[in-house]
Parts: sequence; C-alpha cells; structure tokens
Amino acid sequence: MRKGLLFVLSGPSGVGKGTVCSVLRQKMPELVYSVSATTRLPRQGELDGVNYFFKTKEQFKDMIARDALLEYAEYVGNYYGTPRDFVERTLESGKDIILEIEVQGALKVKEKFAEGIFIFLLPPSLDVLKERITGRGTETEDLIQNRMNVAVEEMNLLQHYDYAVVNDDLDAACHRIESIVTAEHCKRSRYVNEINRMQTASEKA
Amino acid sequence: MRKGLLFVLSGPSGVGKGTVCSVLRQKMPELVYSVSATTRLPRQGELDGVNYFFKTKEQFKDMIARDALLEYAEYVGNYYGTPRDFVERTLESGKDIILEIEVQGALKVKEKFAEGIFIFLLPPSLDVLKERITGRGTETEDLIQNRMNVAVEEMNLLQHYDYAVVNDDLDAACHRIESIVTAEHCKRSRYVNEINRMQTASEKA
Repeated sequence: MRKGLLFVLSGPSGVGKGTVCSVLRQKMPELVYSVSATTRLPRQGELDGVNYFFKTKEQFKDMIARDALLEYAEYVGNYYGTPRDFVERTLESGKDIILEIEVQGALKVKEKFAEGIFIFLLPPSLDVLKERITGRGTETEDLIQNRMNVAVEEMNLLQHYDYAVVNDDLDAACHRIESIVTAEHCKRSRYVNEINRMQTASEKA
Repeated sequence: MRKGLLFVLSGPSGVGKGTVCSVLRQKMPELVYSVSATTRLPRQGELDGVNYFFKTKEQFKDMIARDALLEYAEYVGNYYGTPRDFVERTLESGKDIILEIEVQGALKVKEKFAEGIFIFLLPPSLDVLKERITGRGTETEDLIQNRMNVAVEEMNLLQHYDYAVVNDDLDAACHRIESIVTAEHCKRSRYVNEINRMQTASEKA
C-alpha cells in the first residue's frame, strides 16, 4: 500500500491559515486534518480527539520526553503540540494529512519529516496583512507594529518551503492548495515502482 | 513581467497524448499550444500557423542549420519540428505554452530548455496500451508487438521527467495536468522576487 503524503500549511500570523483550513475541510474531506495536543481545558462543545487531544501537564511533559511530538510550543501558560503517532498512523493507512501550524513549528516538523510538503501562505501585500491584524481590533499600535515586524521576519523563512500560495482570494488560495496536493501525487519519483511492476509483467509475458 | 512556463506532454505512442491535449485546449484556453513546423502538404482545412507552420524542405533544412528548432524528426519522408521562436515569444509574453511531443523529441527539448516541466503520460497498464494500439485495427501482430517493445523501452525514459500522469480516465488525466500547471506556478522559487519586493517596501516604510 502506498503511504499518504504529509502537507504542512504555514505562514505569518494573520495571513488566514485557519480560515483557509476550514474551507479546505469542506472542499477536501479526503484529507485528514491533524489534531493537536494541548494542556488547556476543553471549551464548551470541544471533544477530545476531535478538536484537540486534551492532556494534563504531566502527560504532555511525558510526551515531550518520549519524543512523541513533532513540535510543541508554550502559549499563555499552556502547551500545544503535534502528536507524531496520529500523523504516522494516518500516513501508514495511505491517507494524506495536513497540519496547520505557525512558521517556527513548521520548521521543527521539517527536521523530523523532511519528506513533507511545506506550503507557505502569503498575504497579497504587507498592507493587506496589516489591515487583517488591525481588523481584529484588539491590539494596540505598538503590538500591531511588533506583529508586523515578526511577520516580515517570518517571510524570510519562505526559503525553507516548497510552495508559496498567495491568499488574495479564499477560493483561489484553496484551489491552489488542492492543485498542489494533486500535483504532488503525480511527482515522477512516486511512480518508479509502478513502472518496474509494468516492465516486470511485460518481461514475464 | 514574469515569464510563462513551458510544459511538455509526452509518453509512449498510443497512450492518448493527442486526445488529452485536445480536451486540455477546451479546459485551459489560457495555455498556448505549440504549433509544429512540417514539410508535409496541408490537408483540406488545415491553416498555416494554426495547425502547422508549413515549410518547404529547403526552408526546413535552413531552420535546422540556424538551430531554429527545439527538436525535429523525419517521419515517412517528411520533417516535423518545434520552432524555437514561437515557444520563446510566448514565454516572453508571460503566457504558458504546452508541447505535445513523442518521448525522444521531449528529451531533445529538455537539452535546450532544462527549466521546462516535463509530464509523462502513462497507460493504466501495458494491457490497456496494447488494446489501444490494437484497437486502431491497422497493424499486424508483428507490428503491434514491435510497438509494444518500443513503448516498454520508452517507459524507462520516465526517469527524465518531472511528473507522471496515468491516463486511466480522460477527465481525471486532464484534471491532474491542470493541477500540475497551477502547482508549478506556486513553486517557492518563483516567489523569491515577490518577497524581496515586500520586504524592501517594508524597510522603506
């Protein structure tokens, strides 16, 4: 059985990774969406194994110690991470999986899964990114400028990615990601066995 | 202005390159389809510059001497080739172009256009390929066996290609090629300038 492919969708904060991913879920139900582990408490309606794998701090630290996470980070006092086991089981079953993750985390995944396909979501321009960050209406001018500086820094990390997708239009961005998934399955390297099989069959005939 | 991309669609004789290309013409009118030069006489309804560039043998030999062809071959007493000029002008204008060409010719194009994207059309199986060749009803058993041997040999050349597309279903095969075109435009390497531009704009601000 052919293994599935790992796709990693990343990009600077505010670029719209979450929105793109939620549209992809509807358009591409055949893709498995990675479920993160977290130590934060479940919110109303959140289900273990669906929205998150909910863990205690002890359980989470044990996962870190066992190298059971492809990446993890601490955010406002809670841990968030990507369980390796869920990803590997999905790929072994022949299904593709997609991780939506921030830029630093994606690079950690790349250290452990170099064969993954890394997609960087780009804003159409820095002005548009600033509008989106400002549009949330919760940040001060200083914080916005700080986040913009971080975003510009993060864009430098595009060099470690395989693809860049401009999020100028939600449907267009999703269509590009769908195309990348289809095209990656057509990469010649994935067909070497197929050809050998055909030629062996032909020699036997 | 960004240059267009060169796509080369090839594969063993009988795999259905022509049929796939004619469906692509309808689905992807934004792609330019390369027009071959030939020394054979126009058939009824064929237009110069549309179906072929019709040339005399002297003109064709002059094109060979001037290295004005990306590849050429002789077939039943007539020459067929791909004019370099038409391809280059299309790419310079920012449009993508696709060449439908047999396997040996495609490899010659690769020598001159290494940056092209080479797509190999595969039969779902050798049995299906044999059916398609036999189905034309014009070949003897010996000729069919001979063509099958050539096809099996040609499959070895897949290693020089970027993508493999199985022609199991016409619409599915065309969809895969469309996806490859879209995905290739998202390759990170094509975005380096874009990022530099954004960051320079940010530093100036």
